[in-house]
Amino acid sequence: MYDIAVIGSGPAGISASINLKILGKNFIWFSSRDISKKVSQAQLVKNYLGLSEISGAGLEKSFLEHCEIMGIKPEEKIVTGIYETDGHFTLLAQDSAYEAKAVILCIGTEDKKPLEGEEKFVGRGVSYCATCDGFLYKGKTIAIYCTDKKFEHEIEFLCGIAKTAYVFPLYKNYEIKSENARIILKQPLRLSGDTKLKKIEYKDGEAEADGLFILKGAVSPSTLVRGLAIENGSIAIKRDCSTNIAGIFAAGDCTGRPYQYAKAAGEGNVAAHSAVEYIANLK
Amino acid sequence: MYDIAVIGSGPAGISASINLKILGKNFIWFSSRDISKKVSQAQLVKNYLGLSEISGAGLEKSFLEHCEIMGIKPEEKIVTGIYETDGHFTLLAQDSAYEAKAVILCIGTEDKKPLEGEEKFVGRGVSYCATCDGFLYKGKTIAIYCTDKKFEHEIEFLCGIAKTAYVFPLYKNYEIKSENARIILKQPLRLSGDTKLKKIEYKDGEAEADGLFILKGAVSPSTLVRGLAIENGSIAIKRDCSTNIAGIFAAGDCTGRPYQYAKAAGEGNVAAHSAVEYIANLK
Repeated sequence: MYDIAVIGSGPAGISASINLKILGKNFIWFSSRDISKKVSQAQLVKNYLGLSEISGAGLEKSFLEHCEIMGIKPEEKIVTGIYETDGHFTLLAQDSAYEAKAVILCIGTEDKKPLEGEEKFVGRGVSYCATCDGFLYKGKTIAIYCTDKKFEHEIEFLCGIAKTAYVFPLYKNYEIKSENARIILKQPLRLSGDTKLKKIEYKDGEAEADGLFILKGAVSPSTLVRGLAIENGSIAIKRDCSTNIAGIFAAGDCTGRPYQYAKAAGEGNVAAHSAVEYIANLK
Repeated sequence: MYDIAVIGSGPAGISASINLKILGKNFIWFSSRDISKKVSQAQLVKNYLGLSEISGAGLEKSFLEHCEIMGIKPEEKIVTGIYETDGHFTLLAQDSAYEAKAVILCIGTEDKKPLEGEEKFVGRGVSYCATCDGFLYKGKTIAIYCTDKKFEHEIEFLCGIAKTAYVFPLYKNYEIKSENARIILKQPLRLSGDTKLKKIEYKDGEAEADGLFILKGAVSPSTLVRGLAIENGSIAIKRDCSTNIAGIFAAGDCTGRPYQYAKAAGEGNVAAHSAVEYIANLK
């Protein structure tokens, strides 16, 4: 079991990981190899103290170098569910489960709003993992809602299994080659069904499907952790970055404005210290 | 009148100033030319995200370069009192007064604990400013409590005015040349008197004096701002860095643990944004 699991690829997640490394903790950091798009795509960052007039790409480079020097490598998986079990947490990340005594959520703000009905149908037609759940839909009709080109290979993978796939590619320059893919260039609005998902509704239309795969960088905080307190759309934290659930901490943009690199790095730093204190006080 | 006054020479104060500059505000930054000793004296800093494995001196250099590139220069004065007047604040800094609509306190933790009785005798025998109040004590007996060698010239200045000066030099390698200086190598413990200061008590002794000059880098938050809420010895703030007094914000070590550069820089960033929002909402 890990002491602490950190989730997120922005400055908050990196800052938390660096601090945990220095504090000698046994931790796992779930992140993509590239750090948050928000950082790398920034044109010019002037207010990150100590790195004046730096490009987003330059800032990304500095952050990645810092990880490399510290010997910190991310686990490149997307965590889709966190469950409390016997005083610790089980994290589901694609096809694997991980255990940790405490969790630090640094999951940013992008792509987070769940679809209407999404939470209701998780595990009852809604899946976040092509490789885990794809084979449940062999020869069936599925829908795929994807917000990032980097998941396009998973679209092709799913199309190879399903009979028909309604694909909602919510990103630029999609290139989907599967012949059974039916592209719908609309934002899905609502999921409906009885006990199981039946329909994906979008503006001026609907698609009937046995399952919906949601392929995005992260799921909404309240889908990720049931019962997590949300305030004005952000994870509610105290000054020590603790949430309403003992053992779960949060840092960075997911805790609300201002959306700033220094604020995120600072909260990552604080959350790491608070999480370490938390596990030290566990029996 | 300034929009905002920032007080403090550590990462929080610099971060706040950089953000205010970018946000186009008319601000004044009270700081020494050297940044916080805590930064420059650190041996190796590993957890300031983006600047891996840097010495304290290197970090100081990066911070100062950032100020230089942004064209930010400190006002090298020590603020000794902040008073609310007609919906804005008046700041006393040595021999001058300044006005600002909002204040960000980034005053760190060092040298802050007031002496017993200090607050009671401010303006009634206790002074923080040699050049402002020195001449009130011409030919009289004074005491001087000094915690930093950089104020030694003020000791000599005061000795040149007073008949006798009891000097408590609470720093290493003091070199006080004035013949009327009586050096006492003890920590002052308690101030006493009736309506005016009469005695400085220390372990195994006491000194009678007409006035006491306290020469240190900063005064305690509660002496600086009457009525400021303190919690466990730190300034109590909300997550937006606001204090219990509208228009007064705080960031960095003065708001409590963890005492960390990234946390301080992050809070400086947040406090700047909150202060700007505050003044935007003023009538």
